[in-house]
Amino acid sequence: MKRTVLAILAVFTLTAQSSPDGPQFTANGELMLPKNYREWIFLSSGLGMTYGPAAQADQGNPKFDNVFVNTSSYRALVATGRWPDKTILMLEVRRSMEKGSINNGGRYQNDVVALEATVKDEARFPQKWAYFELGRADKAPPLPATSRCNSCHGQNAAVENTFVQFYPTLLDVATRKGTLNSAFTLKVSVQ
Amino acid sequence: MKRTVLAILAVFTLTAQSSPDGPQFTANGELMLPKNYREWIFLSSGLGMTYGPAAQADQGNPKFDNVFVNTSSYRALVATGRWPDKTILMLEVRRSMEKGSINNGGRYQNDVVALEATVKDEARFPQKWAYFELGRADKAPPLPATSRCNSCHGQNAAVENTFVQFYPTLLDVATRKGTLNSAFTLKVSVQ
Repeated sequence: MKRTVLAILAVFTLTAQSSPDGPQFTANGELMLPKNYREWIFLSSGLGMTYGPAAQADQGNPKFDNVFVNTSSYRALVATGRWPDKTILMLEVRRSMEKGSINNGGRYQNDVVALEATVKDEARFPQKWAYFELGRADKAPPLPATSRCNSCHGQNAAVENTFVQFYPTLLDVATRKGTLNSAFTLKVSVQ
Repeated sequence: MKRTVLAILAVFTLTAQSSPDGPQFTANGELMLPKNYREWIFLSSGLGMTYGPAAQADQGNPKFDNVFVNTSSYRALVATGRWPDKTILMLEVRRSMEKGSINNGGRYQNDVVALEATVKDEARFPQKWAYFELGRADKAPPLPATSRCNSCHGQNAAVENTFVQFYPTLLDVATRKGTLNSAFTLKVSVQ
Protein backbone atom coordinates (compact mmCIF):
# COMPACT_ATOMS: atom_id res chain seq x y z
CA MET A 1 0.00 0.00 0.00
CA LYS A 2 2.86 2.34 0.83
CA ARG A 3 4.19 1.81 -2.68
CA THR A 4 0.82 2.81 -4.16
CA VAL A 5 0.68 5.95 -2.05
CA LEU A 6 4.21 6.91 -3.09
CA ALA A 7 3.36 6.27 -6.74
CA ILE A 8 0.33 8.56 -6.51
CA LEU A 9 2.35 11.27 -4.78
CA ALA A 10 5.02 10.94 -7.51
CA VAL A 11 2.42 11.46 -10.23
CA PHE A 12 1.11 14.57 -8.51
CA THR A 13 4.63 15.94 -8.01
CA LEU A 14 5.52 15.28 -11.64
CA THR A 15 2.34 16.97 -12.84
CA ALA A 16 3.11 19.99 -10.69
CA GLN A 17 6.70 20.21 -11.98
CA SER A 18 6.09 19.75 -15.69
CA SER A 19 3.32 22.32 -15.97
CA PRO A 20 2.84 22.79 -19.71
CA ASP A 21 3.26 26.57 -19.72
CA GLY A 22 6.40 26.71 -21.87
CA PRO A 23 6.45 27.60 -25.60
CA GLN A 24 4.78 25.16 -28.01
CA PHE A 25 5.80 24.87 -31.67
CA THR A 26 4.21 23.47 -34.81
CA ALA A 27 6.03 20.73 -36.74
CA ASN A 28 7.61 23.36 -39.00
CA GLY A 29 8.91 25.50 -36.15
CA GLU A 30 6.23 28.15 -35.80
CA LEU A 31 5.42 29.37 -32.29
CA MET A 32 1.82 28.61 -31.34
CA LEU A 33 -0.10 31.35 -29.55
CA PRO A 34 -0.45 30.34 -25.88
CA LYS A 35 -4.20 30.74 -25.43
CA ASN A 36 -4.06 31.34 -21.67
CA TYR A 37 -1.18 33.82 -21.49
CA ARG A 38 -3.38 36.30 -19.61
CA GLU A 39 -3.46 33.83 -16.71
CA TRP A 40 0.34 33.94 -16.48
CA ILE A 41 2.28 36.39 -14.34
CA PHE A 42 1.87 40.06 -15.29
CA LEU A 43 5.19 41.92 -15.35
CA SER A 44 4.26 45.50 -16.26
CA SER A 45 2.49 47.87 -18.65
CA GLY A 46 3.54 50.92 -20.61
CA LEU A 47 1.63 53.53 -22.60
CA GLY A 48 2.93 54.84 -25.91
CA MET A 49 6.41 53.46 -25.33
CA THR A 50 8.69 54.40 -28.24
CA TYR A 51 12.02 52.78 -28.92
CA GLY A 52 13.01 54.84 -31.94
CA PRO A 53 13.14 58.66 -32.11
CA ALA A 54 10.46 60.31 -29.95
CA ALA A 55 9.03 61.91 -33.10
CA GLN A 56 7.84 58.45 -34.14
CA ALA A 57 5.53 58.25 -31.14
CA ASP A 58 1.84 58.21 -32.05
CA GLN A 59 0.97 60.72 -29.35
CA GLY A 60 -2.63 61.20 -30.41
CA ASN A 61 -3.32 57.49 -30.31
CA PRO A 62 -0.91 55.83 -27.87
CA LYS A 63 -1.10 52.07 -27.31
CA PHE A 64 -0.80 50.18 -24.04
CA ASP A 65 1.53 47.20 -23.87
CA ASN A 66 1.09 44.52 -21.20
CA VAL A 67 3.83 41.94 -20.59
CA PHE A 68 3.19 38.45 -19.20
CA VAL A 69 5.61 35.56 -18.53
CA ASN A 70 4.86 31.86 -18.10
CA THR A 71 4.43 31.13 -14.41
CA SER A 72 7.10 28.43 -14.00
CA SER A 73 9.78 30.68 -15.55
CA TYR A 74 8.71 33.58 -13.33
CA ARG A 75 9.20 31.41 -10.25
CA ALA A 76 12.65 30.36 -11.48
CA LEU A 77 13.64 34.02 -12.09
CA VAL A 78 12.51 35.00 -8.61
CA ALA A 79 14.55 32.13 -7.12
CA THR A 80 17.73 32.58 -9.17
CA GLY A 81 17.67 35.94 -11.00
CA ARG A 82 18.00 34.06 -14.32
CA TRP A 83 15.55 32.79 -16.92
CA PRO A 84 15.34 29.01 -17.33
CA ASP A 85 15.28 27.35 -20.74
CA LYS A 86 11.74 27.38 -22.27
CA THR A 87 10.89 30.84 -20.96
CA ILE A 88 8.24 32.71 -22.94
CA LEU A 89 7.21 36.34 -22.53
CA MET A 90 4.11 37.67 -24.29
CA LEU A 91 3.70 41.34 -25.21
CA GLU A 92 0.05 42.31 -25.66
CA VAL A 93 -0.59 45.62 -27.43
CA ARG A 94 -3.98 47.25 -26.77
CA ARG A 95 -5.74 50.36 -28.02
CA SER A 96 -6.21 53.06 -25.39
CA MET A 97 -9.38 55.01 -24.67
CA GLU A 98 -9.62 58.46 -23.11
CA LYS A 99 -13.14 59.22 -21.95
CA GLY A 100 -15.77 56.69 -20.96
CA SER A 101 -17.95 55.84 -17.97
CA ILE A 102 -16.59 57.72 -14.93
CA ASN A 103 -13.19 58.39 -16.52
CA ASN A 104 -12.59 62.06 -17.38
CA GLY A 105 -8.84 62.11 -17.85
CA GLY A 106 -5.97 59.76 -18.57
CA ARG A 107 -6.31 56.54 -20.54
CA TYR A 108 -7.54 52.98 -20.07
CA GLN A 109 -7.29 49.81 -22.15
CA ASN A 110 -9.44 48.57 -25.00
CA ASP A 111 -9.13 45.91 -27.75
CA VAL A 112 -6.01 43.89 -28.52
CA VAL A 113 -4.15 45.24 -31.57
CA ALA A 114 -1.29 42.73 -31.75
CA LEU A 115 0.73 40.14 -29.85
CA GLU A 116 4.48 39.54 -29.84
CA ALA A 117 6.57 36.91 -28.08
CA THR A 118 10.13 36.38 -26.83
CA VAL A 119 11.28 32.78 -26.29
CA LYS A 120 14.38 31.22 -24.76
CA ASP A 121 15.04 27.80 -26.28
CA GLU A 122 18.69 26.85 -26.27
CA ALA A 123 18.34 23.73 -28.41
CA ARG A 124 16.09 25.32 -31.04
CA PHE A 125 17.82 28.68 -31.56
CA PRO A 126 21.62 29.02 -31.91
CA GLN A 127 21.39 32.53 -30.36
CA LYS A 128 19.25 31.03 -27.51
CA TRP A 129 16.54 33.73 -27.74
CA ALA A 130 14.07 34.31 -30.59
CA TYR A 131 11.32 36.86 -31.29
CA PHE A 132 7.90 36.42 -32.88
CA GLU A 133 5.43 38.91 -34.30
CA LEU A 134 2.11 37.12 -34.03
CA GLY A 135 -0.07 40.12 -34.75
CA ARG A 136 -3.57 38.64 -34.41
CA ALA A 137 -2.56 35.22 -35.81
CA ASP A 138 -2.41 32.00 -33.81
CA LYS A 139 1.14 31.11 -34.89
CA ALA A 140 4.25 32.78 -36.28
CA PRO A 141 7.79 31.83 -37.36
CA PRO A 142 10.79 33.28 -35.50
CA LEU A 143 12.18 36.52 -36.86
CA PRO A 144 15.57 36.04 -38.53
CA ALA A 145 18.58 36.26 -36.21
CA THR A 146 19.53 39.50 -38.00
CA SER A 147 16.22 41.22 -37.03
CA ARG A 148 16.11 44.55 -35.23
CA CYS A 149 14.42 42.81 -32.27
CA ASN A 150 17.36 40.43 -31.92
CA SER A 151 20.02 43.15 -32.04
CA CYS A 152 18.19 45.61 -29.75
CA HIS A 153 17.40 42.97 -27.11
CA GLY A 154 20.95 41.64 -27.35
CA GLN A 155 22.51 45.08 -26.84
CA ASN A 156 20.17 46.85 -24.40
CA ALA A 157 18.30 44.35 -22.23
CA ALA A 158 18.94 44.33 -18.47
CA VAL A 159 18.72 40.56 -17.81
CA GLU A 160 19.83 38.16 -20.55
CA ASN A 161 17.76 39.31 -23.58
CA THR A 162 14.78 40.70 -21.64
CA PHE A 163 13.93 44.31 -20.82
CA VAL A 164 13.74 43.79 -17.07
CA GLN A 165 14.56 47.52 -16.68
CA PHE A 166 10.85 48.07 -17.47
CA TYR A 167 9.56 45.42 -14.99
CA PRO A 168 10.06 47.00 -11.54
CA THR A 169 9.53 43.88 -9.42
CA LEU A 170 11.96 41.76 -11.48
CA LEU A 171 14.52 44.58 -11.60
CA ASP A 172 14.62 44.43 -7.79
CA VAL A 173 15.16 40.65 -7.90
CA ALA A 174 17.93 40.78 -10.53
CA THR A 175 19.67 43.62 -8.71
CA ARG A 176 19.67 41.61 -5.47
CA LYS A 177 20.80 38.42 -7.22
CA GLY A 178 23.53 40.21 -9.18
CA THR A 179 22.28 38.98 -12.56
CA LEU A 180 21.99 42.29 -14.42
CA ASN A 181 23.93 42.33 -17.70
CA SER A 182 27.22 44.19 -17.24
CA ALA A 183 26.57 46.30 -20.37
CA PHE A 184 23.27 47.47 -18.81
CA THR A 185 24.84 48.20 -15.42
CA LEU A 186 27.62 50.21 -17.10
CA LYS A 187 25.13 52.33 -19.08
CA VAL A 188 23.09 53.07 -15.94
CA SER A 189 26.22 54.01 -13.95
CA VAL A 190 27.38 56.60 -16.53
CA GLN A 191 23.95 58.22 -17.00
CA MET B 1 -6.11 0.11 -0.70
CA LYS B 2 -8.72 1.68 -2.94
CA ARG B 3 -10.02 3.58 0.06
CA THR B 4 -6.54 4.96 0.79
CA VAL B 5 -6.12 6.09 -2.81
CA LEU B 6 -9.49 7.82 -2.76
CA ALA B 7 -8.63 9.49 0.55
CA ILE B 8 -5.40 10.86 -0.89
CA LEU B 9 -7.16 12.08 -4.03
CA ALA B 10 -9.79 13.75 -1.83
CA VAL B 11 -7.09 15.61 0.12
CA PHE B 12 -5.48 16.85 -3.09
CA THR B 13 -8.84 17.92 -4.50
CA LEU B 14 -9.75 19.72 -1.29
CA THR B 15 -6.40 21.53 -1.25
CA ALA B 16 -6.92 22.62 -4.83
CA GLN B 17 -10.44 23.88 -4.13
CA SER B 18 -9.85 25.79 -0.91
CA SER B 19 -6.90 27.80 -2.20
CA PRO B 20 -6.31 30.48 0.44
CA ASP B 21 -6.41 33.42 -1.96
CA GLY B 22 -9.47 35.16 -0.50
CA PRO B 23 -9.34 38.22 1.81
CA GLN B 24 -7.81 37.77 5.27
CA PHE B 25 -8.75 39.96 8.23
CA THR B 26 -7.19 40.77 11.59
CA ALA B 27 -9.18 40.04 14.77
CA ASN B 28 -10.46 43.63 14.78
CA GLY B 29 -11.64 43.54 11.19
CA GLU B 30 -8.78 45.14 9.31
CA LEU B 31 -7.98 43.76 5.86
CA MET B 32 -4.48 42.28 5.72
CA LEU B 33 -2.40 43.09 2.65
CA PRO B 34 -2.24 39.94 0.48
CA LYS B 35 1.52 39.66 -0.02
CA ASN B 36 1.32 37.74 -3.29
CA TYR B 37 -1.35 39.75 -5.09
CA ARG B 38 0.98 40.27 -8.06
CA GLU B 39 0.77 36.52 -8.71
CA TRP B 40 -3.01 36.77 -9.06
CA ILE B 41 -4.81 37.44 -12.34
CA PHE B 42 -4.07 40.82 -13.92
CA LEU B 43 -7.22 42.55 -15.17
CA SER B 44 -5.98 45.81 -16.73
CA SER B 45 -3.94 49.00 -16.35
CA GLY B 46 -4.70 52.68 -16.81
CA LEU B 47 -2.53 55.78 -16.88
CA GLY B 48 -3.61 59.01 -15.19
CA MET B 49 -7.22 57.87 -14.87
CA THR B 50 -9.32 60.61 -13.29
CA TYR B 51 -12.76 60.07 -11.84
CA GLY B 52 -13.48 63.66 -10.84
CA PRO B 53 -13.31 66.71 -13.13
CA ALA B 54 -10.57 66.38 -15.78
CA ALA B 55 -8.94 69.50 -14.33
CA GLN B 56 -7.98 67.39 -11.30
CA ALA B 57 -5.77 65.15 -13.44
CA ASP B 58 -2.07 65.42 -12.58
CA GLN B 59 -1.08 65.54 -16.24
CA GLY B 60 2.57 66.28 -15.64
CA ASN B 61 2.97 63.33 -13.33
CA PRO B 62 0.34 60.70 -14.20
CA LYS B 63 0.22 57.45 -12.24
CA PHE B 64 -0.34 53.95 -13.56
CA ASP B 65 -2.89 51.74 -11.88
CA ASN B 66 -2.76 47.94 -12.18
CA VAL B 67 -5.72 45.80 -11.10
CA PHE B 68 -5.41 42.18 -9.93
CA VAL B 69 -8.07 39.75 -8.68
CA ASN B 70 -7.64 36.58 -6.62
CA THR B 71 -7.37 33.64 -8.98
CA SER B 72 -10.26 31.52 -7.66
CA SER B 73 -12.70 34.44 -7.98
CA TYR B 74 -11.47 35.17 -11.51
CA ARG B 75 -12.23 31.58 -12.52
CA ALA B 76 -15.71 31.84 -10.99
CA LEU B 77 -16.38 35.10 -12.88
CA VAL B 78 -15.28 33.54 -16.16
CA ALA B 79 -17.58 30.56 -15.52
CA THR B 80 -20.65 32.47 -14.34
CA GLY B 81 -20.26 36.20 -15.06
CA ARG B 82 -20.65 36.92 -11.32
CA TRP B 83 -18.23 37.40 -8.44
CA PRO B 84 -18.34 34.74 -5.71
CA ASP B 85 -18.32 35.65 -2.02
CA LYS B 86 -14.74 36.36 -0.77
CA THR B 87 -13.64 38.11 -3.96
CA ILE B 88 -10.80 40.59 -3.55
CA LEU B 89 -9.48 43.03 -6.15
CA MET B 90 -6.23 44.91 -5.54
CA LEU B 91 -5.50 48.28 -7.15
CA GLU B 92 -1.77 49.00 -7.34
CA VAL B 93 -0.81 52.63 -8.06
CA ARG B 94 2.68 53.18 -9.50
CA ARG B 95 4.72 56.21 -10.48
CA SER B 96 5.33 56.57 -14.21
CA MET B 97 8.64 57.34 -15.91
CA GLU B 98 9.10 58.97 -19.30
CA LYS B 99 12.64 58.53 -20.57
CA GLY B 100 15.03 55.75 -19.64
CA SER B 101 17.03 53.01 -21.34
CA ILE B 102 15.74 52.63 -24.92
CA ASN B 103 12.45 54.42 -24.22
CA ASN B 104 12.19 57.83 -25.91
CA GLY B 105 8.46 58.48 -25.70
CA GLY B 106 5.44 57.37 -23.73
CA ARG B 107 5.58 56.14 -20.14
CA TYR B 108 6.50 53.01 -18.20
CA GLN B 109 6.05 51.91 -14.60
CA ASN B 110 8.17 52.62 -11.54
CA ASP B 111 7.73 52.36 -7.74
CA VAL B 112 4.48 51.56 -5.94
CA VAL B 113 2.83 54.68 -4.52
CA ALA B 114 -0.23 53.12 -2.87
CA LEU B 115 -2.50 50.08 -2.73
CA GLU B 116 -6.28 49.92 -2.47
CA ALA B 117 -8.65 46.96 -2.22
CA THR B 118 -12.25 46.04 -2.94
CA VAL B 119 -13.72 43.03 -1.11
CA LYS B 120 -16.99 41.11 -1.37
CA ASP B 121 -17.88 39.50 1.96
CA GLU B 122 -21.58 39.08 2.44
CA ALA B 123 -21.42 38.02 6.10
CA ARG B 124 -18.99 40.74 7.17
CA PHE B 125 -20.42 43.78 5.36
CA PRO B 126 -24.18 44.57 5.32
CA GLN B 127 -23.70 46.26 1.92
CA LYS B 128 -21.76 43.12 0.72
CA TRP B 129 -18.84 45.10 -0.75
CA ALA B 130 -16.25 47.17 1.14
CA TYR B 131 -13.28 49.36 0.14
CA PHE B 132 -9.86 49.74 1.75
CA GLU B 133 -7.16 52.37 1.32
CA LEU B 134 -4.00 50.54 2.36
CA GLY B 135 -1.56 53.13 1.06
CA ARG B 136 1.79 51.46 1.86
CA ALA B 137 0.53 49.83 5.09
CA ASP B 138 0.07 46.11 5.58
CA LYS B 139 -3.50 46.40 6.89
CA ALA B 140 -6.43 48.83 6.79
CA PRO B 141 -10.01 49.09 8.13
CA PRO B 142 -12.93 49.24 5.69
CA LEU B 143 -14.01 52.72 4.63
CA PRO B 144 -17.39 53.69 6.13
CA ALA B 145 -20.42 52.62 4.10
CA THR B 146 -21.04 56.33 3.39
CA SER B 147 -17.64 56.76 1.64
CA ARG B 148 -17.30 58.16 -1.86
CA CYS B 149 -15.86 54.80 -2.97
CA ASN B 150 -19.00 52.98 -1.82
CA SER B 151 -21.41 55.35 -3.53
CA CYS B 152 -19.47 55.64 -6.81
CA HIS B 153 -18.96 51.86 -7.13
CA GLY B 154 -22.60 51.28 -6.21
CA GLN B 155 -23.88 53.72 -8.82
CA ASN B 156 -21.49 53.32 -11.77
CA ALA B 157 -19.87 49.87 -11.80
CA ALA B 158 -20.64 47.51 -14.69
CA VAL B 159 -20.74 44.18 -12.80
CA GLU B 160 -21.96 44.19 -9.18
CA ASN B 161 -19.73 46.82 -7.54
CA THR B 162 -16.70 46.42 -9.83
CA PHE B 163 -15.59 48.59 -12.74
CA VAL B 164 -15.55 45.79 -15.29
CA GLN B 165 -16.07 48.46 -17.98
CA PHE B 166 -12.30 49.07 -17.63
CA TYR B 167 -11.30 45.35 -17.81
CA PRO B 168 -11.79 44.41 -21.48
CA THR B 169 -11.57 40.62 -21.10
CA LEU B 170 -14.11 40.51 -18.24
CA LEU B 171 -16.42 42.96 -20.02
CA ASP B 172 -16.64 40.42 -22.86
CA VAL B 173 -17.48 37.64 -20.38
CA ALA B 174 -20.15 39.65 -18.52
CA THR B 175 -21.72 40.80 -21.79
CA ARG B 176 -21.95 37.18 -22.99
CA LYS B 177 -23.29 35.94 -19.65
CA GLY B 178 -25.80 38.80 -19.35
CA THR B 179 -24.57 39.91 -15.93
CA LEU B 180 -23.97 43.61 -16.60
CA ASN B 181 -25.80 45.89 -14.16
CA SER B 182 -28.93 47.28 -15.79
CA ALA B 183 -28.03 50.84 -14.71
CA PHE B 184 -24.70 50.48 -16.55
CA THR B 185 -26.32 49.00 -19.67
CA LEU B 186 -28.87 51.82 -19.73
CA LYS B 187 -26.17 54.51 -19.52
CA VAL B 188 -24.18 52.93 -22.36
CA SER B 189 -27.29 52.63 -24.55
CA VAL B 190 -28.16 56.33 -24.25
CA GLN B 191 -24.62 57.63 -24.85
